[in-house]
Amino acid sequence: MNQAKQTSAGLGTGRPIGLIDSGVGGLTVLHECLISLPGEDFLYLGDSGHFPYGTKSREELRQRTADVTRYMLDRGVSLLVVACNSATAAAADSITELAAGEGVDTVTVIGPEAEIAASISDSGRIGVLATPATVSSGAYRKALEGLGRPLEVTEVEAPDLASIIQRGQPFDDEVLDTVRGYCRPLREARVDTLILGCTHYPLVAPMLQRLLGRDVRLVSAGHAIAAVVQRTLAGSGNLAPGDREGGYHFLVTGEVDSFVELGTRFLQLPLVGRVERVDVP
Amino acid sequence: MNQAKQTSAGLGTGRPIGLIDSGVGGLTVLHECLISLPGEDFLYLGDSGHFPYGTKSREELRQRTADVTRYMLDRGVSLLVVACNSATAAAADSITELAAGEGVDTVTVIGPEAEIAASISDSGRIGVLATPATVSSGAYRKALEGLGRPLEVTEVEAPDLASIIQRGQPFDDEVLDTVRGYCRPLREARVDTLILGCTHYPLVAPMLQRLLGRDVRLVSAGHAIAAVVQRTLAGSGNLAPGDREGGYHFLVTGEVDSFVELGTRFLQLPLVGRVERVDVP
Repeated sequence: MNQAKQTSAGLGTGRPIGLIDSGVGGLTVLHECLISLPGEDFLYLGDSGHFPYGTKSREELRQRTADVTRYMLDRGVSLLVVACNSATAAAADSITELAAGEGVDTVTVIGPEAEIAASISDSGRIGVLATPATVSSGAYRKALEGLGRPLEVTEVEAPDLASIIQRGQPFDDEVLDTVRGYCRPLREARVDTLILGCTHYPLVAPMLQRLLGRDVRLVSAGHAIAAVVQRTLAGSGNLAPGDREGGYHFLVTGEVDSFVELGTRFLQLPLVGRVERVDVP
Repeated sequence: MNQAKQTSAGLGTGRPIGLIDSGVGGLTVLHECLISLPGEDFLYLGDSGHFPYGTKSREELRQRTADVTRYMLDRGVSLLVVACNSATAAAADSITELAAGEGVDTVTVIGPEAEIAASISDSGRIGVLATPATVSSGAYRKALEGLGRPLEVTEVEAPDLASIIQRGQPFDDEVLDTVRGYCRPLREARVDTLILGCTHYPLVAPMLQRLLGRDVRLVSAGHAIAAVVQRTLAGSGNLAPGDREGGYHFLVTGEVDSFVELGTRFLQLPLVGRVERVDVP
């Protein structure tokens, strides 16, 4: 009861779309959703008390994401977006099954970006920039190769990029050198489309665009997921009317202040006064 | 001699493209130039010691921009970009004449954005969001009406927006309310294209895009000027080779530290270690 009441803070009377992530990275996904779907209500859970997910075992992650998923289902979300690569790689199937049991659809990262990248690439030469864990999971390669189009996929591991971005601006020439190094094999492979395979990476999109050239198309999970969510809502006749302005609200399992401070750069929209500390046991 | 030596810091051996502005706003123009033209060298003069230009008289501005222009010509710029609305409105003709005397072309704001907006608008309903001074100068309306296409122009004055942005993030709901108010007449006029008529405004582009809807095209001076500079260089056969990575460097007449701190949000690329304090008497 108390939970249901809390959920409605900053939101309309309908059921919000839920997003889950291990911290602030998924806010780049919410950013695109808020711009593409201004009429909808969103509820974002940043499990920052358990950040990072990337270093947890598959079993730990399946357990933790099950807890988080159940919590969001109790909060009454109408659709669940897994805005986190690690959670998707380890537990997409179990999260999807759990949500389906309550009649709630799930959208995860990886598949949507792969689909968009393959559909907009002219040459079929697609790059993927991702964490070592994501690259070695083979998830993007599998998703791309499953699309039935001959593609030349170049994957580049960026071991330091997410933590550099998390640490914050101002970016200096050392960061530029790091990103320049990641871009070299992508330039050599003459990719015309690059998947930003980590939700942190949109924050260095200008740097990537400068180093790769404006003609290279950058595809983020945010763009792709916003499109899937829109399609899903439209398909079920649940899109909000065009003149409605939706609300958005944040739940965090860690510190509120650091979430606001870090998150503003990722969301690029007001966060202040919308963040609530919660316990998800 | 000493000046010529300083100019080359962080730049190649060729003559850089110069940009002038009253402070950090023009960095959104440089941002687009750096992404569209990664092979060129740029030299940016932020006249922050004389900020703001907006409150100076026409005569004061013509005098000051003449000094700044002469300084940049002495620094050997190959092309001069006036990345400032106030300077353009008050002194575009005198700056252009001064530079032409040294055989240097000038590109100013306002005209390029107007041209792009008119060419991409389907409905011909174009919005302009600008400072009261810019709106009352009639510069955008004149530029749009001179393009020989019937257009319905809706101008909205945003008295507080540039200073809110200059003050910095995190944006809160008060900022959102302010921007929402500016968007109301633009929504009512059903504009399909909006000119961001101040170089500060790209920092609230996500907010504008959410409030106006993703279908409304936002046109910034940065986009437009990068396109004009590219066309100008290509026309004279001076485009850098595709594999070259150009340099960029900053000169400021005010404090270095505050320029770096403020400027990072506007440039979204590394500034640290590239900023030099200069006197432009």
